[in-house]
Amino acid sequence: MKEQIINIAKDSVKASKILAGLSSLEKNRVLRAMAKALIKNTEIILKANKKDLALAKKAKLPAALIDRLLLDRKRIKGMASCLFSVAELDDPVGQEIKSWDVPSGLQIHKVRVPIGVIAIIYESRPNVTADCIGLSFKSGNSVILRGGSEALNSNTAIFRAIAEVIKSNGLPEGTVSLISTKDRKAVDILLKLNNYIDLVMPRGGENLIKKVVSLSRIPVIKHYKGICHVYVDDYADLNMAERICFNAKVGRPGVCNAMESMLVHRDVAVRFLPEMIKKFKAAGVELRGCPITKKIAKGGIRLASDKDYRTEYLDLILSVKVVDTLNAAIAHINTYGSHHSDSIITDDEQNAKEFLRKVDSACVYVNASTRFTDGNQFGMGAEIGISTDKLHARGPMALEELTTYKYVIYGSGQIRE
Amino acid sequence: MKEQIINIAKDSVKASKILAGLSSLEKNRVLRAMAKALIKNTEIILKANKKDLALAKKAKLPAALIDRLLLDRKRIKGMASCLFSVAELDDPVGQEIKSWDVPSGLQIHKVRVPIGVIAIIYESRPNVTADCIGLSFKSGNSVILRGGSEALNSNTAIFRAIAEVIKSNGLPEGTVSLISTKDRKAVDILLKLNNYIDLVMPRGGENLIKKVVSLSRIPVIKHYKGICHVYVDDYADLNMAERICFNAKVGRPGVCNAMESMLVHRDVAVRFLPEMIKKFKAAGVELRGCPITKKIAKGGIRLASDKDYRTEYLDLILSVKVVDTLNAAIAHINTYGSHHSDSIITDDEQNAKEFLRKVDSACVYVNASTRFTDGNQFGMGAEIGISTDKLHARGPMALEELTTYKYVIYGSGQIRE
Repeated sequence: MKEQIINIAKDSVKASKILAGLSSLEKNRVLRAMAKALIKNTEIILKANKKDLALAKKAKLPAALIDRLLLDRKRIKGMASCLFSVAELDDPVGQEIKSWDVPSGLQIHKVRVPIGVIAIIYESRPNVTADCIGLSFKSGNSVILRGGSEALNSNTAIFRAIAEVIKSNGLPEGTVSLISTKDRKAVDILLKLNNYIDLVMPRGGENLIKKVVSLSRIPVIKHYKGICHVYVDDYADLNMAERICFNAKVGRPGVCNAMESMLVHRDVAVRFLPEMIKKFKAAGVELRGCPITKKIAKGGIRLASDKDYRTEYLDLILSVKVVDTLNAAIAHINTYGSHHSDSIITDDEQNAKEFLRKVDSACVYVNASTRFTDGNQFGMGAEIGISTDKLHARGPMALEELTTYKYVIYGSGQIRE
Repeated sequence: MKEQIINIAKDSVKASKILAGLSSLEKNRVLRAMAKALIKNTEIILKANKKDLALAKKAKLPAALIDRLLLDRKRIKGMASCLFSVAELDDPVGQEIKSWDVPSGLQIHKVRVPIGVIAIIYESRPNVTADCIGLSFKSGNSVILRGGSEALNSNTAIFRAIAEVIKSNGLPEGTVSLISTKDRKAVDILLKLNNYIDLVMPRGGENLIKKVVSLSRIPVIKHYKGICHVYVDDYADLNMAERICFNAKVGRPGVCNAMESMLVHRDVAVRFLPEMIKKFKAAGVELRGCPITKKIAKGGIRLASDKDYRTEYLDLILSVKVVDTLNAAIAHINTYGSHHSDSIITDDEQNAKEFLRKVDSACVYVNASTRFTDGNQFGMGAEIGISTDKLHARGPMALEELTTYKYVIYGSGQIRE
């Protein structure tokens, strides 16, 4: 198996050199053909997905995970339309980031180029397979995919439909690779191949991320959990706060930009919480609160543990905490959060500014739902994931974030004194 | 020792939160005070450096390394003037990279923020100590320095002068830290502290880099060796080629942007090489060539081994290879080089374009010396190193490259449908 994975990586390197030189026109044509292939293969993909779903139910996987795993006609159309829209997006490769002259007379151009070979290790959601292929391809990178075993049938069906397009367009096989062995050692081997692979992006649970970080000799950008907060300030419009908190929790609880923890300033807790709690309970949300929240709720709420505040439920569960000050809210978020997305609801400009400046997260909001942290919602046209890291890319990652740059320098015989 | 290093890291985190909020004015004032402190402490620093030099000579360290280690009045002035010029540079923190509105009505601002805590592990050159402190401080990051044992006395003297300024200005001690134990395990401990440290930058030899990459759980940006090439094309202006190659090799052989390998197109080899070789020999350069080079040189040249082409000599030694085609030159550079800086000398626009596009290096030149790869020469005002990595930062790194960004998003009650 080791040799097989090394060969895949070598093929990826070869392919990356060809992909780096493709024109935008050529790439867009192939992307549209990929999209059409997904539609054409809908039945095959659905059949494969049914197999995965049956196994998942048999294994009693949690509801949120099964929601992520599920494909239907609409989601497959969504995958295809994502590929179509990636074809419409500007090609980042070759874009000049900036250029300038220096006193020596050299002309310096900072130009976007593909990264090279990207490995993506992910769990559940099979639509990730198509998204990753589309965005990597458009940005001129070859990609090695390693999906979760629970989605193997779905991923393989999607991969096959796209690989066929790559082949029939005369592109190298190494353009897109799927590591489909169930052997968990495959990832260990992959993560040592820093001579071939330029970047690895893990998307998944805590154990996966920790494993990748500890084993990888390849640079890693983590797409880690989202422990997102909404903080209801003492200067909040409480109607707005209720609408936003409800949306952030209940809209789609199984995704990383959903709210997992709600913080409320003590001065508005008595006015805000009872109605809010009622709404949440009516929507089936299980609440876990601090002692003050429990007291205000008058029963029906579990006491939140320290662990609750560090948990990404990905489900209809919410931790609630009443805080004394804005700075206590900020400190809580920086300590218990995952540096993903956090929002303050306030009409006070100073409080908003302080929150936005001090909360150390990829996306900091005022008066909006955390659910907007998303490449499409950000106008990037697509997204390959949401980085919770600080280096290279932070927050939603799309085409630009899948490129690096080089300095192209024009001289006329300059030597350095 | 472990506890001591963890405490340093914890202090760095605390300091980073304060540094992130400092005004540019305040930072610039302190930077100028640091510069003055270096000048004021010149004698103390020189005395410490003499100790290091004596030990280095006793240990028979190579000449290039001793050149790097050496401080004199001029170099200390250079360090101070570097700090003065960092004070003059624009503060990257708080800069808006871009901003835009999206259909939901959200206003998105992409804003530069400090990375947090940066650890720098480096060898020899004590001026790195002052440069790293200046650039980290200006970009709002706290920094943990681990210099080479051969420069410990010099580094400690520089560090003490600057730490005194930090203290007397009421800034937290964790702003700048120097790990001064000689115990090599200190680095192993440091590299596990991914809960405190955001970025580690190793600058040094192959063994140091390999060690850091294999042990670190913290994101790494490598400042790796420079195996830089100049390729003399068949369409080169041979006088220009001679001037540039001589400058790239002989100007300052101990630095990473010096040429280590010269490639010559076979059609100009007989015209170009004899005179060039004569010049190199007169300057004391030892040549190691391919069989054709040897033949043309008519003696006095060692045969270059495969290892020679992979070696960063950092000394007056040069490998030379005659190549059949432009693409052979490109393939050689991408295989044997270190993705640092490579130059083509040519008057042919097509050949230049192909070289610039296909050579996978941080800096690709046409008709100029590789010696220009340098933050100052690039107009960045300073440099903390030259990244040979592709992620986050590539090539010369200065203030902007020491920041990350966050998305600051203004809403008016938006929820996601």
